[in-house]
Amino acid sequence: MTTTIDNSDMKMIAQVIVEKIFKEDNNDHSEKMKKDLLNIPIGVSNRHVHLCQKDMDILFGEGSELTIYRELSQKGYFAAKETVTLAGPKGALNKVRLLGPLRNNTQIELLASDRFALGIEPPVRESGTQALAPTITLVGPKGTVINHMGGMVAWRHIHMNAQEAKLLDLNDGDYIKVKTQGEREIIFSNVKVRIGEAFRTELHLDSDEANAAGIKNGENVKIIL
Amino acid sequence: MTTTIDNSDMKMIAQVIVEKIFKEDNNDHSEKMKKDLLNIPIGVSNRHVHLCQKDMDILFGEGSELTIYRELSQKGYFAAKETVTLAGPKGALNKVRLLGPLRNNTQIELLASDRFALGIEPPVRESGTQALAPTITLVGPKGTVINHMGGMVAWRHIHMNAQEAKLLDLNDGDYIKVKTQGEREIIFSNVKVRIGEAFRTELHLDSDEANAAGIKNGENVKIIL
Repeated sequence: MTTTIDNSDMKMIAQVIVEKIFKEDNNDHSEKMKKDLLNIPIGVSNRHVHLCQKDMDILFGEGSELTIYRELSQKGYFAAKETVTLAGPKGALNKVRLLGPLRNNTQIELLASDRFALGIEPPVRESGTQALAPTITLVGPKGTVINHMGGMVAWRHIHMNAQEAKLLDLNDGDYIKVKTQGEREIIFSNVKVRIGEAFRTELHLDSDEANAAGIKNGENVKIIL
Repeated sequence: MTTTIDNSDMKMIAQVIVEKIFKEDNNDHSEKMKKDLLNIPIGVSNRHVHLCQKDMDILFGEGSELTIYRELSQKGYFAAKETVTLAGPKGALNKVRLLGPLRNNTQIELLASDRFALGIEPPVRESGTQALAPTITLVGPKGTVINHMGGMVAWRHIHMNAQEAKLLDLNDGDYIKVKTQGEREIIFSNVKVRIGEAFRTELHLDSDEANAAGIKNGENVKIIL
């Protein structure tokens, strides 16, 4: 038995093939883009302090301002030249860096390892949370502040650009996993997604977490969806 | 149609049922046992030093011996009263604890975070490895040793009792994953299994790793097979 194919059949077949190739190409492209978005850089924080204006005035003098020491990867944020002393019931940490700009509330982001030097057990909390916390005394060149609400170990989180979050189908407040590479490979669970229009996508870890994984500032990790 | 069952049939059926119940019971028991074995305690190490006799003699005087400060969880091992100073090109760490008993080779187990204080980049290595490493100077009350082979960050590992390893079908040198619980949940990959007849099964982490996971000495983690 033979089958005859006329010109119009041939045209239709060609069109189906072209469409199929084009669609696959598009899918490949969007898959590749998504895959690229899953590889994100890390930003590593040491212990640091965000001050409110009122505490800034007490610690550094009325009307004083932070001066930029180094710009951070998130636009508008910076490490300041100013530092403070943090003291707890057991001891003190000297020259703890302030980060700018000033905030509505003073927040003291510690390392879990700082609990020995200070003699307190800081809670693991999301940045921005104000709730009763172990008392920490801040000492600056012009005065002293006794803080009861701002001491914490920061909950690990990703700053994610809104466009990229949309492509990955992630919502603000979602929890995801992130995997590092190398000899000290770690999968970090409970990583909170924080979405912002102007954010540069970046996993924020503190230096305990980065050291445990053997990774450094600017290196890449992979989001596991 | 009726089927007749005589006494010998009845006996056989009863036996089959009893055997089946017994076997299931045994399986449940062995499954429960295996499950229990997957939950293991952690031992957290800060930076510490193991000395060989020759270095002990130089640092603390000819024929000197370690004195027990505190027994460790692995039988025969102890934290010594003696401490040394470790120095690198950038600075020194004071009062670094010695662990006993003495070993064939001096080994200096650092935290990844110590690289800033000392100004060296210690390799991640399995305990017992002797290979070229960044130079570290050890200073004791009676002398100084310059070490080129023993500086490292310890590769994370499990000390596993031989009987328990057999039940879990694990061999010496296997790599497994271990999962912690809590707000800072982490899955540690590349955990090396080290089997010993007299070992107490325990995950060994350094304080960077324990802090990153928000867990403390003696708490439990779960083996993922």
